[in-house]
Amino acid sequence: MQDPIITLTTDFGDDSPYVAALKGVILNINPSARLLDLSHQIPPQDIRYTSFFLAAAIPYFPPEVLHLIIVDPGVGTERALLFVEVAGHRLLAPDNGCWTELIRGAAQPAKVIRLVETRYWRPLVSPTFHGRDILAPVAGHLSLGLKPELLGPLAEDWVRMEAKSPIQQETDWRGEVAFVDHFGNLISNLPAEALPAALPCKICVQGVEIIRRVRSYAEADPGTLVILTSSVGLLEIAVVGGSAAKQLNATVGTPILAKRTMA
Amino acid sequence: MQDPIITLTTDFGDDSPYVAALKGVILNINPSARLLDLSHQIPPQDIRYTSFFLAAAIPYFPPEVLHLIIVDPGVGTERALLFVEVAGHRLLAPDNGCWTELIRGAAQPAKVIRLVETRYWRPLVSPTFHGRDILAPVAGHLSLGLKPELLGPLAEDWVRMEAKSPIQQETDWRGEVAFVDHFGNLISNLPAEALPAALPCKICVQGVEIIRRVRSYAEADPGTLVILTSSVGLLEIAVVGGSAAKQLNATVGTPILAKRTMA
Amino acid sequence: MQDPIITLTTDFGDDSPYVAALKGVILNINPSARLLDLSHQIPPQDIRYTSFFLAAAIPYFPPEVLHLIIVDPGVGTERALLFVEVAGHRLLAPDNGCWTELIRGAAQPAKVIRLVETRYWRPLVSPTFHGRDILAPVAGHLSLGLKPELLGPLAEDWVRMEAKSPIQQETDWRGEVAFVDHFGNLISNLPAEALPAALPCKICVQGVEIIRRVRSYAEADPGTLVILTSSVGLLEIAVVGGSAAKQLNATVGTPILAKRTMA
Repeated sequence: MQDPIITLTTDFGDDSPYVAALKGVILNINPSARLLDLSHQIPPQDIRYTSFFLAAAIPYFPPEVLHLIIVDPGVGTERALLFVEVAGHRLLAPDNGCWTELIRGAAQPAKVIRLVETRYWRPLVSPTFHGRDILAPVAGHLSLGLKPELLGPLAEDWVRMEAKSPIQQETDWRGEVAFVDHFGNLISNLPAEALPAALPCKICVQGVEIIRRVRSYAEADPGTLVILTSSVGLLEIAVVGGSAAKQLNATVGTPILAKRTMA
Repeated sequence: MQDPIITLTTDFGDDSPYVAALKGVILNINPSARLLDLSHQIPPQDIRYTSFFLAAAIPYFPPEVLHLIIVDPGVGTERALLFVEVAGHRLLAPDNGCWTELIRGAAQPAKVIRLVETRYWRPLVSPTFHGRDILAPVAGHLSLGLKPELLGPLAEDWVRMEAKSPIQQETDWRGEVAFVDHFGNLISNLPAEALPAALPCKICVQGVEIIRRVRSYAEADPGTLVILTSSVGLLEIAVVGGSAAKQLNATVGTPILAKRTMA
Repeated sequence: MQDPIITLTTDFGDDSPYVAALKGVILNINPSARLLDLSHQIPPQDIRYTSFFLAAAIPYFPPEVLHLIIVDPGVGTERALLFVEVAGHRLLAPDNGCWTELIRGAAQPAKVIRLVETRYWRPLVSPTFHGRDILAPVAGHLSLGLKPELLGPLAEDWVRMEAKSPIQQETDWRGEVAFVDHFGNLISNLPAEALPAALPCKICVQGVEIIRRVRSYAEADPGTLVILTSSVGLLEIAVVGGSAAKQLNATVGTPILAKRTMA
């Protein structure tokens, strides 16, 4: 049988002993677990970033993988910790909405279990580190074949991320920057179909009009502001060989106006 | 049999080809070794950081794991390279004190072997990269089952980290910041028991008095300076949703005064 | 049989969901693949950095490992994607010269295959993410034992990195900084044999003369500018316990003059 895979996504930072502690706890329970870092550089306590990250990453994994997500500003409060089955994937995460974007693509409703069975936790639980003391040991036990139903009762409600949907006004769309990637590309919340590549259009961000539509970055000269379809199917604004975030002084939440123009 | 696990902790940086070279050397000797990154973002040559990091990470691992630690400002000098068994864990590290905090929790004295048997090293040893040419191949051979005794003689002495202990004056404690985590939380060298949560107290750092004691970050409003018990059992100073290091302009070594106050 | 190892080297950044997507795609095709991060912190689109990185890392790996390299400023254009066998190693990379430094040490010419067989790709290929949609699935299939010849035709030509060779003038050498490591050490493009350690010499960088030659960093006092032989066999300029890059305001491409001096 295949050794089970557990992925790790946290905001702990790559310089952090807390990441190492998580790994140790899991391996102590299941030394066969194959641990896979997704990222430990989620911006601190940034649920929205986590939400976009997971939606762009989790769907590519096979269903048998277990995903451990620890971005948890509410640690130590009454917020729940959850085991989730959604769209064929299995996650452990705090109940803060970070995973609910995954429901959108799901054929079936999510199955959500609230972690309450302390027998699968570490004996002493620090109020500041539930990742190490609750989520990691639960991940270890699940990877050994424990049935999720033994972790606690089914949850009937959970926190949902308020996704910022774009607004359509006739042929115009008002949206915003949903994600800024490592290259400084601005990923909007506008579906690429909103502005079919075949029709002339323009995008306005921070008072700048962008009209050049390309399929790939290298199609235009270095330094050019371009519109393209991002690899996750959303409209994207980029500077060829540069950072659109810097050049336009734009960040998550910056408004974007997309308009059809005359042919 | 379980494939052996080797963890890697270095100050090489995540952009470094030196980390990749380590991994290649180990896999060349034992392609079955399961490599696990703990961190490559230890601040350059920072033994104190490494010491705190290891004490907060290693105890959580099962004993069969081998830990390779390469933070080595003395590379190429006469400083020894060591194989260490301490508190049930096995490490390879330069003799610079980075691991000696682990002795504190140990029931038995450490067993320390000085690496001298060149047959387990790479044939050519660069004076600037003993990690690649000595420690990594030795890790590979150990993971194949080599007896540590074959690596060299028992060491009777080694460098010890000078741990900065807090000073108690009646009911006051004078300590300092021992670690600043990725969130900017200040972990002190004061054991949490020094200031029992049930009794009123205050902490002074950089001329600022902090009196709010909480169990978890989210108990107070964003921006509040709070005292809590860190997940490693030490007093911690945090700003809810922010960075205490930035707000107090504090860093490792910044003095901390903890006082009981009247009820 | 050993589970196959696939290494990942990208410029996506450690905060990127794109890295996670790669891992998911590979595991979806071959859940037994052992994924190993080399680096995701290659500076954006920096082919020269990638070239140095690979030359300093790949040779240490055993031949059965497959290396996936995604630094790809030309994504979506007509630039080819390649499977390469060179110097006993196997790589998947865009055709941008990032791997051609490995040819230097090779006894045999490289075998290069152009990826054209779409049956091994994801069904929908985004013009902005060939790593996820072409290279990752091809890596997954190769790790299952697919013959590289099935991926496409042999390539007879490919982009070669223009390596900047140093120029010898009698006993002087004119070179430049080829790589700046995480510590700020300046690795030149001058082979260490150009300036044998036994003979007096000096190096001029940014108007500063450096004459102290050492074998290891700790041989000189902190703050001293020194010349040494880097672990990859090139002349290196370092500041003991500091950053030569900062102190000399030097970066990749900064000219270096090396001179023999009178005894």
